[in-house]
Amino acid sequence: MNVTVNGKTRHYRTVTFDSRTNSVRLIEQRLLPHEFKVVAATDYGATAAAIRDMIVRGAGAIGAAAAYGLAQGARAFHGRDLGRFARHVERVFQGLKAARPTAVDPLNAMLQVRRRMEAGTDVGEQQALALAAAEEFAHEDVQHCQAIGDHGAKLIRDGMNILTHCNAGWLAFVDVGSATGPMYRAQARGRRFHVFCDETRPRSQGATLTAWELAQQQISHQVIADNAAGLLFARDKIDLVIVGSDRTLGRTGEVANKIGTYAKAVLARRHGVPFYVAIPFSTIDWNLKAGRDIPIEERDESEVLGAWGMAAGSKSRARTPRPTVPEYVRVANPTSRAFNPGFDVTPPELITGVITPAGIFRPEELWRERRDLGGPR
Amino acid sequence: MNVTVNGKTRHYRTVTFDSRTNSVRLIEQRLLPHEFKVVAATDYGATAAAIRDMIVRGAGAIGAAAAYGLAQGARAFHGRDLGRFARHVERVFQGLKAARPTAVDPLNAMLQVRRRMEAGTDVGEQQALALAAAEEFAHEDVQHCQAIGDHGAKLIRDGMNILTHCNAGWLAFVDVGSATGPMYRAQARGRRFHVFCDETRPRSQGATLTAWELAQQQISHQVIADNAAGLLFARDKIDLVIVGSDRTLGRTGEVANKIGTYAKAVLARRHGVPFYVAIPFSTIDWNLKAGRDIPIEERDESEVLGAWGMAAGSKSRARTPRPTVPEYVRVANPTSRAFNPGFDVTPPELITGVITPAGIFRPEELWRERRDLGGPR
Repeated sequence: MNVTVNGKTRHYRTVTFDSRTNSVRLIEQRLLPHEFKVVAATDYGATAAAIRDMIVRGAGAIGAAAAYGLAQGARAFHGRDLGRFARHVERVFQGLKAARPTAVDPLNAMLQVRRRMEAGTDVGEQQALALAAAEEFAHEDVQHCQAIGDHGAKLIRDGMNILTHCNAGWLAFVDVGSATGPMYRAQARGRRFHVFCDETRPRSQGATLTAWELAQQQISHQVIADNAAGLLFARDKIDLVIVGSDRTLGRTGEVANKIGTYAKAVLARRHGVPFYVAIPFSTIDWNLKAGRDIPIEERDESEVLGAWGMAAGSKSRARTPRPTVPEYVRVANPTSRAFNPGFDVTPPELITGVITPAGIFRPEELWRERRDLGGPR
Repeated sequence: MNVTVNGKTRHYRTVTFDSRTNSVRLIEQRLLPHEFKVVAATDYGATAAAIRDMIVRGAGAIGAAAAYGLAQGARAFHGRDLGRFARHVERVFQGLKAARPTAVDPLNAMLQVRRRMEAGTDVGEQQALALAAAEEFAHEDVQHCQAIGDHGAKLIRDGMNILTHCNAGWLAFVDVGSATGPMYRAQARGRRFHVFCDETRPRSQGATLTAWELAQQQISHQVIADNAAGLLFARDKIDLVIVGSDRTLGRTGEVANKIGTYAKAVLARRHGVPFYVAIPFSTIDWNLKAGRDIPIEERDESEVLGAWGMAAGSKSRARTPRPTVPEYVRVANPTSRAFNPGFDVTPPELITGVITPAGIFRPEELWRERRDLGGPR
């Protein structure tokens, strides 16, 4: 998407590859929304570190970063011995996989790259195929988000107020984003609408990343406390809800997404407001049979007990270097502990529709339509 | 309630009066939960400033502070001229009233003190009556919270998990608190239970004040993001909800309380969990005829766009003085704005019962029972 820095507007993707320098170029997301900066990971170890240290985050984005990282590592090999090359690639694969061991996207992305490489008959050919496969993975991620945008934009009418939760925007993918895809497409079609961004405690991705994205695209928006949506629903100030998903069960239509999503779905139903989930195929889980089997990650208590932000004086202190990463402050009572589940599960009866690259479906229809949605036979 | 500082446990009230030094003594609530300190306001101007600057906050607490402040100001008068005394008292009254012009509690408390003073026939007698009336106001505040505790404790059974929102604890009153009253009484009766404290963004009074209160009383508790309650309800981890109220309509049973309360009531209903509101008589509004007529304060955007906390290094920086007030950090995208409503309204059909000093009622019963609840004829 376009980003304006110091008055200059340029098109960026979250993850790109520079084949000349064999570098993975990434938006440094830990600095957002306070600073926009693109960093280069010049070897696969740096790419793995960028994934591990959250310079890049979001399912599609870390998938593409891992795919590029595997190609980058493969291309750094000098020699013609296919056996030694294969062992080298395996080391690269394991190094990138270990960067975010519980995430499924980097693994699937790298397996896809490796399958494509196998068609090559020498090292050079396999290296070229690896890069082609990584580029294709990234290209497909963008295309899928664009298709979600095309289908979802039909839901957005002039003058609407839209609620979204967390960040399922272009920063979480290679470009465009899932929940934001319909908004960007509707804007391109000349529609005017307003977005309420749940701040999305405890990590505040709505207040930081989604708000930054919408501001960059000059889409009218306001940040709200997660507590405020109830009043907005009660006052008929929300016409449509669009959220992303971390895992959607293809067999049941249950949607796991960032903690707090479920409460918004319950409120939307009570007030008769349509509630949509935007998902690329990669987030559909065709295996699990029940939402209660989805593991709910319990994250570190410190996230709930504090917040990350920039102190008011940070930019003006003359002689000290300006902090580059927001600082952590302890908010809660120092002797209290927290419970910090990362996700919740929304049942299909609360979901009006699932916006996929192949169209909009009722959640219960996913299994029937599974062949069009990249699912099993 | 008891507070333990440096290993020593003592009983404190939020607001007390020291007649020897003619001072209002207040817990400095802006330092909580990071530091516990009692400050003395040595003249009525200082008491007004403490109310204005939020050293003391919460309906009952600022009511008592204003009542004591009026007595304090009256007692500082030297002379016997009743006319000059009356003009002096009027200046004190206006000075304290201006400290928090939209709050109703300080006004009602001071009117009560002034009515009692009128029975005195000379300055000395009126001064003595002012202090007696202020002490009575504070005493009644405590008694009402204790009565709420007695009635509400019956709802708390061994092993229960209780959800509460914001701070309706003893820090918001003179002692005991409204929503916390039943918890403290149940604990005194030997019941064991666990409390989930909504952090209550944007001002985080749950994470700071309620968590501090419960930790001081050694009540098992955890802070949760406001987003987390949905998952807890869905997992049957909440058995009872008790919240306070800023204004309850005696005619309709609608309850205005801190933003986010309504969403919790909707979730509680969906999951069949009882939802109670604890209210002293002073928060019942017998005049308004509909919840939609309750003015919803829109508070400053900065509350949503940032957070207040203590930086990790704050206590260890050797040569710089330790900060006494938590620091504000900007969390959200710097070019985004926020919408920050302070309250929402929960309809009576979502409320299982209203816990008052006179017993527990269905919200629709308040009007019928109005004589027992301090209401009109």
